[in-house]
Amino acid sequence: MTAAAAAAVALVREAGLAGVGELLVDPELLASYRHDQAAPGLLASGTPAAVARPTTTAEVQAAVIAAARAGVPVVARGAGSGLSGGANAIDGCLVLSLERMTQIVDLDPGALTATVQAGVVNHALRDAAAGERLLYAPDPASYEFSTIGGNVATNAGGLCCVKYGVTRDALLGLEVVRADGEVMRVGHATRKGVTGYDLTSLLCGSEGTLAIVTEATVRLLPQPPAAHTLAASFSRLDAAGHAIAAICRRHRPSMLELMDRTTIGAVEALQPMELDLEAEAMVFARSDAGRVEGAEEIAALARLCEQAGADLVLTSDEEAEGRMLMAARRLAFIALERQGSTLLDDVAVPLPAVPALLRGIERIAERTGVLIGTFGHAGDGNMHPTIVYDHTDADALVRARAAFDAILALAIDLGGTVTGEHGVGLLKREAAARELAGSLDLQRAIKAAFDPHGLLNPDKVPWAA
Amino acid sequence: MTAAAAAAVALVREAGLAGVGELLVDPELLASYRHDQAAPGLLASGTPAAVARPTTTAEVQAAVIAAARAGVPVVARGAGSGLSGGANAIDGCLVLSLERMTQIVDLDPGALTATVQAGVVNHALRDAAAGERLLYAPDPASYEFSTIGGNVATNAGGLCCVKYGVTRDALLGLEVVRADGEVMRVGHATRKGVTGYDLTSLLCGSEGTLAIVTEATVRLLPQPPAAHTLAASFSRLDAAGHAIAAICRRHRPSMLELMDRTTIGAVEALQPMELDLEAEAMVFARSDAGRVEGAEEIAALARLCEQAGADLVLTSDEEAEGRMLMAARRLAFIALERQGSTLLDDVAVPLPAVPALLRGIERIAERTGVLIGTFGHAGDGNMHPTIVYDHTDADALVRARAAFDAILALAIDLGGTVTGEHGVGLLKREAAARELAGSLDLQRAIKAAFDPHGLLNPDKVPWAA
Repeated sequence: MTAAAAAAVALVREAGLAGVGELLVDPELLASYRHDQAAPGLLASGTPAAVARPTTTAEVQAAVIAAARAGVPVVARGAGSGLSGGANAIDGCLVLSLERMTQIVDLDPGALTATVQAGVVNHALRDAAAGERLLYAPDPASYEFSTIGGNVATNAGGLCCVKYGVTRDALLGLEVVRADGEVMRVGHATRKGVTGYDLTSLLCGSEGTLAIVTEATVRLLPQPPAAHTLAASFSRLDAAGHAIAAICRRHRPSMLELMDRTTIGAVEALQPMELDLEAEAMVFARSDAGRVEGAEEIAALARLCEQAGADLVLTSDEEAEGRMLMAARRLAFIALERQGSTLLDDVAVPLPAVPALLRGIERIAERTGVLIGTFGHAGDGNMHPTIVYDHTDADALVRARAAFDAILALAIDLGGTVTGEHGVGLLKREAAARELAGSLDLQRAIKAAFDPHGLLNPDKVPWAA
Repeated sequence: MTAAAAAAVALVREAGLAGVGELLVDPELLASYRHDQAAPGLLASGTPAAVARPTTTAEVQAAVIAAARAGVPVVARGAGSGLSGGANAIDGCLVLSLERMTQIVDLDPGALTATVQAGVVNHALRDAAAGERLLYAPDPASYEFSTIGGNVATNAGGLCCVKYGVTRDALLGLEVVRADGEVMRVGHATRKGVTGYDLTSLLCGSEGTLAIVTEATVRLLPQPPAAHTLAASFSRLDAAGHAIAAICRRHRPSMLELMDRTTIGAVEALQPMELDLEAEAMVFARSDAGRVEGAEEIAALARLCEQAGADLVLTSDEEAEGRMLMAARRLAFIALERQGSTLLDDVAVPLPAVPALLRGIERIAERTGVLIGTFGHAGDGNMHPTIVYDHTDADALVRARAAFDAILALAIDLGGTVTGEHGVGLLKREAAARELAGSLDLQRAIKAAFDPHGLLNPDKVPWAA
């Protein structure tokens, strides 16, 4: 440990022990707070001086004040399930783990709102809402373990975004602790409100670089009707792309997903379910438009798939059967992980560019000699090309990284963005800086306004440097 | 005209004539650019030194550079249909009227996006989208004349927000001219994107104080099915409140409006349609859930109204008949305007507080001795209490203003906000400053980051001062 880090420990302990809640300093415990779930080995991750695990906003405040006095950087984290290294620790920093802030402060079925502490797991909020026959819509694939605070920090997406939007769309207000330790509430308790600049949207997706989210107030919706389901397989990728385009043009499915041949093969290898291994793509869709309209919508989607050239289209109006149709899609990432180490990408392109993105990824895989399985939220143009490589092979790692960078460049060339829903973190600092070249000075100025001493997650996202 | 204003004219003309497009300096023409539609006579409005009417981003840029060199403030405006004085001119300023920037730059049915110049009227975008069987959802009551640039500047709401959200929810990206004249693009062409702080949401609702919006890229949706309609009248206001609450708890109507007894009386006086003048409230709802589900939803809403104690419930599955049921609501504001000068308010409260808001407004009307008709977007908790007064009576004006301020205080007391969708402008500077007390320093710092010399709409919104 460096002298600076040692000093940080001393200062944090002296200043903070009284009120920061649980404080971990045992090196073995600290090690488990070094990084999130992003591409292990690829990204820098330091050893924190200490990990504070507060249960209240006042404890977060005490920890931030202690760190500010000591001049120690603060890296906030929720479940540590991020995929971009946004929660990776810095040597000598204070990690502020919000995992114990698990109170659902308020769930008001009349107001259709919930206020939760940052550490509440998405699934717990979802369950609580369901208990009132309400829906908390944002459903990142990590919903069983990721926290609302983390979802807010990354503006997490998910499968239902195609109809119900992302985390930001469900967010009404926040309680945050600022870099100087001040507690601030932003946003509105109401469904509409236009006083002031929208600090709530600004904080959402800011990856812990502007303030520490302690509580979030979110919108709930009446639970939609039971969903109807479709799965279709296409011998040609372009045909699947045409089907997706035709569907989006006229329908609002509650889910519209795609996976490519590599992913189909990986899923079938993991769990044989008679998938067509010759198919270049499978498309999955759900409709929650209602008992009659939902069935009609899925029937219409089936016709569009057939017209586009689908070889096989299966539909179901029943939930249990629908889940079976969806099983292949749900296994996509797990199946690819079984094939080797994975570098999960997350790019988004305009809808008409989805086929070009998929073809381009195939070419990149050929050129770099890596395996890439692609799946994702085709209805939003948000895909997850997943590079599978052998992390014990140095050359394979170099080629994987080259493929990853080529995919980012391709997404930008197609009018897209280098991250649709996973965030920038450490993984995409350079690519994001290129994408944002025209507004970097403002990004930096906003960072300086919130965090003048640069103590909040300072090495993440290029505009915060 | 002051010396400063005269200097401003000279400077603007010298610096800008070459490239700012049309420049008005005729005093009679300037007079028509002094103010927007907010409470005439109540708010300050100066005489601009000049009005630039550019047709291109380059001309906007030239005008902003000329003004910046001359140190002259710039007040941007679209149709001038704002209701908060946000576009009111300052003596000696440059008014930048974007009304001639009416190009629909791109409408891409495949990408489900449109890019329009700031001066495109909401209705024109709506029509263009409808030509492709697509929907641009945000529908402020002013949609027939207000511009997309103005809608973005105020984050305009409307009737369909209850299901489809506000302008910010439809906004993907912006082209803006910054205070120093630089052209900047923010946001994403894609439906999802999380690179960088969300400058698009920050600019939306910033009322011309951060940058000049020149182009907006918005999301389009497939056109929803034809709507089914309900109108109900209630002898008791609380019963209407209960009906609204019960509806929101289980349904997602595409519109859910309410108007009170004063408004009902004003409408019936304007156009006799056998409304129940004893009713304390009428509720209007639409469902676009589809041919079958929409009819079922409206039938369910009708049952909820009856259970809550409605005296009369009318429903229709046909568009023409539905429009007749909606006629009373559509006439609400016009009818109140016929009764005298109006001071239109715009507060939002959590849904369960809507009845308390309405009762409180009644008490304020009694206490201050003014007539207040209230109507609005009950399903969002966003109501428009409209104070009717005689502007030739100085005492009446004082009482009207007292009632107005009391309503703002009541909304805050009920956990709400002083403006749901009309913006702060000049009208609510003090009230907004109180509501935002906890974040004013950040609001100011953001203003300073975008506009260090304070030239963009500088006297509006308290945090910009």
